[in-house]
Amino acid sequence: MKIGIDAMGGDFAPEAIVEGAVLAAANLPTNVQLVLIGKQDIVNQLVTKYGYQGSQIEVVHAEDVVEMGEHPTKALSQKPHSSISIGFKLLKEKNIDIFCGAGNTGAMHVGALFSIKAIEGIIRPAIVGLVPQKKGGYAAMLDIGANADCKPEVLEQFGVIGSIYAQYTFGIDKPRVALMNIGEEEQKGSLVAQAAHQLLKENNRINFVGNMEGGDFFDDKADVIITDGFTGNALFKLAESFYTVASERGIKDDYIDKMNYEAVGGSSIVGVNGNVMIAHGISSPTAIKNMITWACKQVEAQIHVHIAKALS
Amino acid sequence: MKIGIDAMGGDFAPEAIVEGAVLAAANLPTNVQLVLIGKQDIVNQLVTKYGYQGSQIEVVHAEDVVEMGEHPTKALSQKPHSSISIGFKLLKEKNIDIFCGAGNTGAMHVGALFSIKAIEGIIRPAIVGLVPQKKGGYAAMLDIGANADCKPEVLEQFGVIGSIYAQYTFGIDKPRVALMNIGEEEQKGSLVAQAAHQLLKENNRINFVGNMEGGDFFDDKADVIITDGFTGNALFKLAESFYTVASERGIKDDYIDKMNYEAVGGSSIVGVNGNVMIAHGISSPTAIKNMITWACKQVEAQIHVHIAKALS
Repeated sequence: MKIGIDAMGGDFAPEAIVEGAVLAAANLPTNVQLVLIGKQDIVNQLVTKYGYQGSQIEVVHAEDVVEMGEHPTKALSQKPHSSISIGFKLLKEKNIDIFCGAGNTGAMHVGALFSIKAIEGIIRPAIVGLVPQKKGGYAAMLDIGANADCKPEVLEQFGVIGSIYAQYTFGIDKPRVALMNIGEEEQKGSLVAQAAHQLLKENNRINFVGNMEGGDFFDDKADVIITDGFTGNALFKLAESFYTVASERGIKDDYIDKMNYEAVGGSSIVGVNGNVMIAHGISSPTAIKNMITWACKQVEAQIHVHIAKALS
Repeated sequence: MKIGIDAMGGDFAPEAIVEGAVLAAANLPTNVQLVLIGKQDIVNQLVTKYGYQGSQIEVVHAEDVVEMGEHPTKALSQKPHSSISIGFKLLKEKNIDIFCGAGNTGAMHVGALFSIKAIEGIIRPAIVGLVPQKKGGYAAMLDIGANADCKPEVLEQFGVIGSIYAQYTFGIDKPRVALMNIGEEEQKGSLVAQAAHQLLKENNRINFVGNMEGGDFFDDKADVIITDGFTGNALFKLAESFYTVASERGIKDDYIDKMNYEAVGGSSIVGVNGNVMIAHGISSPTAIKNMITWACKQVEAQIHVHIAKALS
């Protein structure tokens, strides 16, 4: 298994990315290879600096870098030798099994759509965020930021792909799918949420359990939380900030620690023909290390294959 | 000053409401009178049961009750003798200075619109939630649930009324107004958020400081947080649930305790010709007591008078 990583993407790249990869390499299964994509001399120097001497890290050269503030589409077309462009080329040609990056999120998303493309039948791919639940485990929330505006049928499809995601990632037979809303009754909420509720209710491919509210976020009401990328992004970042608040207040708690963005480290883009994982721009070495661990599991789950099969 | 309270509204009414009023009455300024609206014999019995013997609580009889699940408009037209209907009648006739209730939120909102009505020029009144900030004090978020769908010009007006709210409630000269969004750059976000950003930026009545994200919720980025009632409701309830998580984990922290819904107890409906405050259906006696304290401050702030003046 080959895990491709954009060594140049992120606020603290390439240092934090390479350090994270070296940390991950220390405990990697022997069948896993890390492929760092970036400026070869710099990345090699850092691999040496962080003391890695094994054979599970290789470096693929990329001359250019897409900066954080750049326009995604423009940057990708103007920089075919950027680490993001080369990462997606490797992914498309199946030279890597997953491409992970903490750089320009828009460019990662557009890169996925332009290279491996959306699965046939998918209206809009989504980013899946993992929400730690009080009872243990995670709920998968989608979308957490790829699609700020979602039509009801897009939310319905999130229910289908989220359900497949939860089934093969968490190993749950009939994942409970809930719609984020502002009331439990089906006539509550925005026009889009009301319409989506009806579509989800009538969709017999999923185990729809109705609406949930912001206050139910951690309460194990569902395995899959459906929402648009606007609300989802705001909720996900607020939940992450709970860890920050607790940490700043000197509170150390196993459960609240799971809300730390570093704990999972990466979020999958689901609905495209391959495995893509994006990480926070601020990613630390620990976050990158954990993202790599998580990436191995995502490769094994082969979500995109199951989604393609379900939609064919 | 007369604080009207729906004694029959809420999951634990009338007991919790009357007990809360009695708790509040123990420390009430001498110029404040509590007016409990509900079934006179029951409410009087409870006032006695909870040991109140002073003269700052009076009871106004209401024969009927709007139940939690009832359709707001229907219930109000069919139940003119309900505690909510009578509360708004008293408010309209200026026999009370504020009407507070923990019952059917929709009925409280519709009751306000039908009785004291929206201030001339107000497109949509909003519910204001108080978000405790790390540095101390609160940010006022609107809307937290009255309007699930908001057009850009509605969000712009929330900026104006939210700014007045913060000015006279918090005593801040030029409150910082931020738009909840999923990125800092002005071209980020949903179509509505993008359009609202432009309108807020060009509005010279307010001190617009740009976008904020879910992760900035507690970080004192703004005194006023503008968002639609869908996202606002979800965020507000999620933030409240952080107190629940901490409490269940045995964590006791002064700052996190402020996220407890009981700490403020009530949220003002802003943009109508009078003072109206709504509370959680689950309100405990402590929540009701704190809502009453907060209601006294809201009456003094006279937000509706300042808004009417600003829009005239």
